[in-house]
Amino acid sequence: MTILSRRSAVEPFRAIDVMTTAFALEREGRRIVHMAVGEPGAPAPKLVRDTAAATLASGRIGYTEALGIPALRRRIAAYYGASHGLDISPERIVVTTGSSAAFNLAFLTLFDVGDCVCLPTPGYPAYRNILRTLGLEVVEIPTTEETRWTVTPEMLAAAHARKRLKGLILASPNNPNGTMIAPHDLGAIVSACRELGIRLIMDEIYHGLVYGFPTQSALAFSDDAIVINSFSKYYCMTGWRIGWMVVPTEIVRTVECLHQNLALSVNALSQQAAVAAFDATEELEAVKAGYAANRAFLLEKLPEIGLDDLHPSDGAFYVYANVRRFTNDSVDFARRLLVEAGVSVAPGIDFDTSRGANHIRFSFAGKPTDMAEGVERIAEWLR
Amino acid sequence: MTILSRRSAVEPFRAIDVMTTAFALEREGRRIVHMAVGEPGAPAPKLVRDTAAATLASGRIGYTEALGIPALRRRIAAYYGASHGLDISPERIVVTTGSSAAFNLAFLTLFDVGDCVCLPTPGYPAYRNILRTLGLEVVEIPTTEETRWTVTPEMLAAAHARKRLKGLILASPNNPNGTMIAPHDLGAIVSACRELGIRLIMDEIYHGLVYGFPTQSALAFSDDAIVINSFSKYYCMTGWRIGWMVVPTEIVRTVECLHQNLALSVNALSQQAAVAAFDATEELEAVKAGYAANRAFLLEKLPEIGLDDLHPSDGAFYVYANVRRFTNDSVDFARRLLVEAGVSVAPGIDFDTSRGANHIRFSFAGKPTDMAEGVERIAEWLR
Repeated sequence: MTILSRRSAVEPFRAIDVMTTAFALEREGRRIVHMAVGEPGAPAPKLVRDTAAATLASGRIGYTEALGIPALRRRIAAYYGASHGLDISPERIVVTTGSSAAFNLAFLTLFDVGDCVCLPTPGYPAYRNILRTLGLEVVEIPTTEETRWTVTPEMLAAAHARKRLKGLILASPNNPNGTMIAPHDLGAIVSACRELGIRLIMDEIYHGLVYGFPTQSALAFSDDAIVINSFSKYYCMTGWRIGWMVVPTEIVRTVECLHQNLALSVNALSQQAAVAAFDATEELEAVKAGYAANRAFLLEKLPEIGLDDLHPSDGAFYVYANVRRFTNDSVDFARRLLVEAGVSVAPGIDFDTSRGANHIRFSFAGKPTDMAEGVERIAEWLR
Repeated sequence: MTILSRRSAVEPFRAIDVMTTAFALEREGRRIVHMAVGEPGAPAPKLVRDTAAATLASGRIGYTEALGIPALRRRIAAYYGASHGLDISPERIVVTTGSSAAFNLAFLTLFDVGDCVCLPTPGYPAYRNILRTLGLEVVEIPTTEETRWTVTPEMLAAAHARKRLKGLILASPNNPNGTMIAPHDLGAIVSACRELGIRLIMDEIYHGLVYGFPTQSALAFSDDAIVINSFSKYYCMTGWRIGWMVVPTEIVRTVECLHQNLALSVNALSQQAAVAAFDATEELEAVKAGYAANRAFLLEKLPEIGLDDLHPSDGAFYVYANVRRFTNDSVDFARRLLVEAGVSVAPGIDFDTSRGANHIRFSFAGKPTDMAEGVERIAEWLR
């Protein structure tokens, strides 16, 4: 009998495949420079680890409320007051197993099989792959330098006229290229969504990691958007698998019921520890200063070794580079770079199924010494 | 505009609602006896907590392979050799964020929108609710004492004749009633699935917690079944959110790609700690001896207070009781029992949308003193 469903035929997340191969090579004794996945080289802040250790010592790591422990929901809500001057009720906060679970929950909550959801490209591949698995039609809008790699209200309206859109997923800073949407432009796109009846899911997981102009949350413009964030990036807690969403008040109970059934609750140790993450600003800003230095280093050195067609990299910890001078197969390029030179990078095809064939994403979230060694190895390998 | 999708309209997991209310009452200073959710009163074994503490101290809690860290996949595979005499390749093990994530992955991997999946009732509510959210048609087969609360090959064939079934989900020990399928009967149902072309998803998360005859894994009869297990129950690691699935070799890569996109990876601290869980048998068997004592206590005392119509409770840590003498609304019964008497129990309607209206599930995973206090409070409240 046929075993697999049709909807299970999703694309791999190739950056994770690269990381998996890199781990296997390390177990064989190879030294690998990691620039593939978006993962801080720094551990979680000391305060977070200390809180986790104390929670562990106290014994019980049990089920929690499906929406998250009240202390963490309150602390996240308070963050919006302190950082964005926004009054967000803790009732609107849903703690999730990373942003990954939040996206799945948001898609199920808002969209039915056959609905059309719009994604600018290049963008995060899991959006596209989860949407397809859930039976949604993905409408991609290729972006260019002309609009700073995001969609404008006009582009959205034109796409909506061709195919009735139910949702739009935006990220600022964006993955893979780090481009940001200026606050004024974000306000305009939120208005356009409202006028066109399109639900906005805003990915803000790289908030806090910006090197140009300040970030603004979509919540400043709308209580209707679903905003998704995570402790993985700025807060250096990737492997802890914890993130959150802010949802409109009237859908909280529906999200809660879905989450009860899909997950029961989120890792309790991670929830307790995450409460402390907001008090670790000094340590986290020092980590971020390291990213800024790494970014400056790469933006100077990559062009010197022939990678001179780069996206802006306003935020996050990525440089997205055009490598058409070297390849039209970014998967093969990344595989060979890893196996032959011991440097892991993410193939652009993850983020853009057409133009990504000749793009590569570098993560600069690692140590400064890794950046230097990475560039040196790539330079030699390209020669 | 309409905000919510149609498919988001799932039933709540009412046992979790009860737990959430119980937590809120505790924060107000009330003393609550917890018998609602299936959660061990004991913490994770000391070896597990020590391993977690050492991992924390070592610093990095990062992303892992989407299928799980190799050490844990090997250890889980070895468990099947040691406990069941089965030779299972580590390649077939997929580490997941609890059994919850495993069910979601299994359903997406095997079933397309519109497919029919069969569930015996009473049974675990999240199966039904997740299946419906994913667009699947749930075909329930009510079970009775006559077949020891499970489906027979004949019942399955009859249901298949009425409506072409794509899948069957079975649990042994079963939740909410703890009933088990004898090895011979399990072999027969596996054969029936094979003959009828029905995919079997076998929930074995209560393995290890049995008081009657020994458990047998469906893997003893089939390499085609997807078997799901968890560290939450026998291993006392609920809040750690870690479980696993064993899948046929030919679908591993598909499950991996889905998991990469839906989750990236599983909590790394929980993965490291779980490796140690298999070496904590002495501590865990002592915990289980406590369950056996609790079970004996409840099976003796509940009939004395008027709850004398009980399911067999061969395994797991549940007693499922008919309470039609007292109510036809188990949700209201559970709510009042909690608020008025401070005892949390799970409404039967979670597990059986018709007959559950006059059933209640008691969890006896807590402390012996809680069992005594719970029964006393219930007795007084019923009077």
